[in-house]
Amino acid sequence: MDNTADPHSVGAVTPRLAKFTEPLVLASGATLAGYELAFETYGTLNADKSNAVLVCHALNASHHVAGYYADDPKNVGWWDNLIGPGKPLDTNRFCVIGVNNLGGCFGSTGPSSPNPATGKPWGADFPLVTVEDWVTTQARLADQLGIRRFAAVLGGSLGAMQALSWTIQYPERLGHALVIACAPNLSAQNIAFNEVARQAIITDPDFHGGHYYEHNTRPTRGLRVARMVGHITYLSDDEMASKFGRQLRHGKLNYSFGVEFEIESYLRHQADKFSDYFDANTYLRITKALDYFDPAAAHGGNLSLALEPATASFLVVSFTTDWRFSPERSREIIKALLDNRRDVTYAEIEAPHGHDAFLLDDARYHRLVAAYFERIAAGLTA
Amino acid sequence: MDNTADPHSVGAVTPRLAKFTEPLVLASGATLAGYELAFETYGTLNADKSNAVLVCHALNASHHVAGYYADDPKNVGWWDNLIGPGKPLDTNRFCVIGVNNLGGCFGSTGPSSPNPATGKPWGADFPLVTVEDWVTTQARLADQLGIRRFAAVLGGSLGAMQALSWTIQYPERLGHALVIACAPNLSAQNIAFNEVARQAIITDPDFHGGHYYEHNTRPTRGLRVARMVGHITYLSDDEMASKFGRQLRHGKLNYSFGVEFEIESYLRHQADKFSDYFDANTYLRITKALDYFDPAAAHGGNLSLALEPATASFLVVSFTTDWRFSPERSREIIKALLDNRRDVTYAEIEAPHGHDAFLLDDARYHRLVAAYFERIAAGLTA
Repeated sequence: MDNTADPHSVGAVTPRLAKFTEPLVLASGATLAGYELAFETYGTLNADKSNAVLVCHALNASHHVAGYYADDPKNVGWWDNLIGPGKPLDTNRFCVIGVNNLGGCFGSTGPSSPNPATGKPWGADFPLVTVEDWVTTQARLADQLGIRRFAAVLGGSLGAMQALSWTIQYPERLGHALVIACAPNLSAQNIAFNEVARQAIITDPDFHGGHYYEHNTRPTRGLRVARMVGHITYLSDDEMASKFGRQLRHGKLNYSFGVEFEIESYLRHQADKFSDYFDANTYLRITKALDYFDPAAAHGGNLSLALEPATASFLVVSFTTDWRFSPERSREIIKALLDNRRDVTYAEIEAPHGHDAFLLDDARYHRLVAAYFERIAAGLTA
Repeated sequence: MDNTADPHSVGAVTPRLAKFTEPLVLASGATLAGYELAFETYGTLNADKSNAVLVCHALNASHHVAGYYADDPKNVGWWDNLIGPGKPLDTNRFCVIGVNNLGGCFGSTGPSSPNPATGKPWGADFPLVTVEDWVTTQARLADQLGIRRFAAVLGGSLGAMQALSWTIQYPERLGHALVIACAPNLSAQNIAFNEVARQAIITDPDFHGGHYYEHNTRPTRGLRVARMVGHITYLSDDEMASKFGRQLRHGKLNYSFGVEFEIESYLRHQADKFSDYFDANTYLRITKALDYFDPAAAHGGNLSLALEPATASFLVVSFTTDWRFSPERSREIIKALLDNRRDVTYAEIEAPHGHDAFLLDDARYHRLVAAYFERIAAGLTA
């Protein structure tokens, strides 16, 4: 696909860097004296700065949400199918902002950035960050951009947790929250899968206790295994069955530990790709942010109490075959919002793709998001 | 529990070793000139040798199915809750036989055994073995013991695949097959989880291409991760939720990569225990045997054709929360058996425990197995 010719692409985009010099006290108690956030914007902020939409990213994504880079046209934003001129989140109407989260590895300050105290990469000494920390830094970025209130904050999976946290932390600073393929916290099984990924990374001899940068090495083996186990949880059983089934790679069994089944080939390929570009210390921290997120915890497990401050209108979307964050988990959020008599639209989309469905171009799902943004746009011009 | 005082225990047992000198041609094409199988028996073979029951083991188990060792009374057989005097599989009536499968690491010839060609451990050179190979060796063991026909062959999970394969490979040599928590083959998702486990082991620098014995080391890190990921698939999401939920180990978050949640502690403990006693080369081979098992493959994917030779009566049992081998997969077996007008009893047990339910002392499940063995016993004395 030649993106440069696509009239529905936001086109060539340029990442920017925001500097923050006000110290940031994190949930862990650690303080960062300063930090930077990489971000991108698409579309134009209107005169009263009321049309800004913040897009929060999930585990392995970044601030590069839509468009492409002029010098790397194949590097298309991770939610490009949703965002652009005439797309469900229409950049002709909205000004969309993507941010690489603190602790990330795509330009924002993170474990691979230099630690001002030593001049060497932070590595293991970079503090653990939480969803709440991310939302705080995103609010500070909004301050810098002069955005007092977002028309909407939008995210899928871990990104949706950030959208949800926005409604609690800064209720007056967003009109709508789009909470897609989310859960109000991780289940024991979710945490267990994260722990497998972490153990794979941490026990890799090339991890060097998180200080691998200084050893000019990377815990690639561990990161590969982490990605493989994660990937399985993003796809539905049915989707794997229809995409790969028991198809053999070489037409027959070879009785070896090389690739025999297509699914093995696919997983190894995903693992290789991911371990090539992603930073292990960032991955570790993102899995911890997922584990920790639990807004109800401060209210004795009562999610309704946790969401009491929220004033935003909500679109909550789940996918029938998502077994990582099942529709049941979204319904917990719905219940808590209804307990607070909030304005909520909820849709369970019948889609075969599992958790990853939120990233895919499913017509019913995209029509729904488009209609919801129509409604938001109507509110702006009213 | 003091097993030595339990009247329903088979008591102190002694493993035995059977030697085979007739060469064995494996499914892979490789030939073993000779091999040994470790086995145990409980109960007494009757005069016409018609009361023998073979118990096939699953992934990490062995020939030590019931009872305990006099010098190690805490080492209780893995299916001791089911097998013993007055238990569902009553050793007052049946003579029960457990075998450690070929390629195992509990006494039968396997990768850690000396390779006669070199005098050193086989390691990576030990051939890959299949469910069909195991059944062939079990039949040869039966020959040595003078057992022409088993009253029943019984197994759960991978053990059930062996029971199923018995009905196809040696239909005239068993009266009943008890096929518990089984699937007629692995799904793409099942294979994917196995592949994660294998990659964790194979990429562990201590694996040394499978020849770690010579390096006086073991790929413990890889084996730990393999066990963790396996373990998650044995438990149901609900069971994990009710057993562990989001319970914190130290009452509060510590913002570290140490244990924070109880589920992490549990998984690490399981991983440590397992990697301490299990052989990685055996684990790799058992996951491959699982991947390969697919009796329908030789019949264009038609399981009904594959099961045409079977003449045994069947008890098939599945568990509602088993997401590794769901009840749906058992129903595929049932359909194929009914297509062949076989005598089948099928039960879907409502149990919260997931795949591991087949090992647990669930009253309804045990009553069912007891009743089925009553029926088998009645057939013997008739």
